[in-house]
Amino acid sequence: MFDAQWGERAAANLKDLRKSRPLVHNITNYVVMNYTANALLACGASPVMAHAPEEVEEMVSLAGALVLNIGTLTPQWVEAMLRAGKRANAVNVPIILDPVGSGATRLRTESAKRLTRELSMAVVRGNASEVLSLAKKEARTKGVDSVHSVDEAEGAALALATDLKTTLAITGKVDLITDGKRILRVHNGHEMMSRVTGTGCTATVIIGAFLAVDPDAVHAAATALAYFGLSGEKAASQANAPGSYQMALLDALFTIDEEELLAGATIEVVR
Amino acid sequence: MFDAQWGERAAANLKDLRKSRPLVHNITNYVVMNYTANALLACGASPVMAHAPEEVEEMVSLAGALVLNIGTLTPQWVEAMLRAGKRANAVNVPIILDPVGSGATRLRTESAKRLTRELSMAVVRGNASEVLSLAKKEARTKGVDSVHSVDEAEGAALALATDLKTTLAITGKVDLITDGKRILRVHNGHEMMSRVTGTGCTATVIIGAFLAVDPDAVHAAATALAYFGLSGEKAASQANAPGSYQMALLDALFTIDEEELLAGATIEVVR
Amino acid sequence: MFDAQWGERAAANLKDLRKSRPLVHNITNYVVMNYTANALLACGASPVMAHAPEEVEEMVSLAGALVLNIGTLTPQWVEAMLRAGKRANAVNVPIILDPVGSGATRLRTESAKRLTRELSMAVVRGNASEVLSLAKKEARTKGVDSVHSVDEAEGAALALATDLKTTLAITGKVDLITDGKRILRVHNGHEMMSRVTGTGCTATVIIGAFLAVDPDAVHAAATALAYFGLSGEKAASQANAPGSYQMALLDALFTIDEEELLAGATIEVVR
Repeated sequence: MFDAQWGERAAANLKDLRKSRPLVHNITNYVVMNYTANALLACGASPVMAHAPEEVEEMVSLAGALVLNIGTLTPQWVEAMLRAGKRANAVNVPIILDPVGSGATRLRTESAKRLTRELSMAVVRGNASEVLSLAKKEARTKGVDSVHSVDEAEGAALALATDLKTTLAITGKVDLITDGKRILRVHNGHEMMSRVTGTGCTATVIIGAFLAVDPDAVHAAATALAYFGLSGEKAASQANAPGSYQMALLDALFTIDEEELLAGATIEVVR
Repeated sequence: MFDAQWGERAAANLKDLRKSRPLVHNITNYVVMNYTANALLACGASPVMAHAPEEVEEMVSLAGALVLNIGTLTPQWVEAMLRAGKRANAVNVPIILDPVGSGATRLRTESAKRLTRELSMAVVRGNASEVLSLAKKEARTKGVDSVHSVDEAEGAALALATDLKTTLAITGKVDLITDGKRILRVHNGHEMMSRVTGTGCTATVIIGAFLAVDPDAVHAAATALAYFGLSGEKAASQANAPGSYQMALLDALFTIDEEELLAGATIEVVR
Repeated sequence: MFDAQWGERAAANLKDLRKSRPLVHNITNYVVMNYTANALLACGASPVMAHAPEEVEEMVSLAGALVLNIGTLTPQWVEAMLRAGKRANAVNVPIILDPVGSGATRLRTESAKRLTRELSMAVVRGNASEVLSLAKKEARTKGVDSVHSVDEAEGAALALATDLKTTLAITGKVDLITDGKRILRVHNGHEMMSRVTGTGCTATVIIGAFLAVDPDAVHAAATALAYFGLSGEKAASQANAPGSYQMALLDALFTIDEEELLAGATIEVVR
């Protein structure tokens, strides 16, 4: 079921990442800033958080990828995201959007839609409810938690990816990646990941880092999620409560090497 | 000294919480956002942080409780708190206020007083200096640390709870809970809790979660503090330095089950 | 090579700190707020984070030191820093500046320069690129990471310290402290420290705490960096991946006692 070439691709991306140490520029929410910065360091990237409109264009020009995350958004931060994103598009820096809580409030849904409409996104990563809320026919979200399974989401995701001309990465028990033509599923992961706040946001920044070394967004997203999910599995062998698990997950991102990733990645090609 | 019915009440609340997984909406300080979100997840609740005036009313309408914490306040955030709080009062979502550092600066004291005057609070949780600073005759606070013991605070707390028509939860070596008539003390806890930043704020969010399942604010506060204090005791058996203790405390919030809480809660009825 | 009197000075400072528990007021970046607050608690100080222009002057008047860190700056936060800093200068509260990312964007470089021009800093702490970007002839910074070694920086640092009338603490593999006349080097530290986000910011707050008990800025910075570096060494004996290392570093800050610091500090007097 799992093609070895995908494990190789994942390992090659991880190797490139640790060699080139790309700068990943984040405009993200307050809750996860420390953890996602540490996750980026652990995977080999160099994180920077910067949200002032006065500097985001300059900062993103130095970066290998831009992460936009609306977890604690205000209209002012959305403006900074648009400003950074337009420059990123102009200088070919790939953008990944995490529409945290889209579908739960009008501000979140409209901001996420505006960002996908005004910017060209390489990837949009969220749970099924968040991602599907970007379609014209809205899905519902409870706070920041999904009310859809990935299975239910597949058909809608294909149409939405085509409509938005982007790659969608819908994470859940199984992760779904599609650009409207290709469909991949990633089976790595562990249920403890949902017991720690910001693991979705962390998945997003890891994809961001992989985008800095792999120009194919579907490949970057799938290999990043295999690596992140495998880290979640490895952490679960070390810890079974959320405090120690949060720490073990960072450790695993750091200690997983190319051989482990090559052997452990479970990426399925659906079409 | 400790009535078994209180242990049962605490265990029942924890069970309800883990079953219903209420959304707890937080408008809180930057320092503790990650940790308190994780604490809410660990106890069984579903956290969301949202502070934009444009969305707080919508978000709080989805929630089982609202946490207001002035730890890194600005006047703009206080306005968002008032907006969220008025809606919460209108739709009967219980509010808990954490007046971090009230008494230390005029902005904090006046903001905390304004919040208690313009909103109907289910619970106000702070150290003795912070809570007593809400009285007309002000107490003094050094930064965010208390200069009063809980014992010294009891008389003043009774009068203040009556005056503010709220339940006060004053935490310290022994925790004091009063609504102006009833007085409970919670003896659970461990001195290591004061070595980690934001444990007071964490007590607040745990009470918030319990308020979502127990409509009696005195009961919710006392049972939540017994659970949190017991977690602190359990963590101290795992770790004796603050980095590992911070992690062990999250683990304990997650691993404590109803039986442990029933057996370990030390709630004393003073009157 | 290492003079015992420096170990004694370091131990005496740590003892004073744990006895007097000074309040350290931080206007800092979102990424590190939790971790640096915990680091301050672990070393014996009492942290407070407060950035509202309406309260910073009052808060800093209660403090033993002021930490200014531009890691996630906006022009509004820089105004609050100036306001707090002017009051700090007026009431003789020592200020330490961390010019995070100065050299990477115009906003950061100009803000850092403005802060050093309009305020009298006791210490400026950064990596070589950040600190040297404060000179008229600018150095370059990649994101928030240094592109200079400490060795390359020594000559430029002497001139800059004289020009800015401050003490510079340039951290790296070996730390360099100079006030333009004296030069000290601190050899404590461990490479794992660079694998955790915000260790530079943590070095800064530790120096801030030491400034609250040692009026000689060169001595405060060198002894603080010896203590922090020694903590990094001790943590490396406990953990070799970044999640567990981040936690072990806090533990080490807490558990290191005066005897360990006296024996382990490696401060070299260059001149």
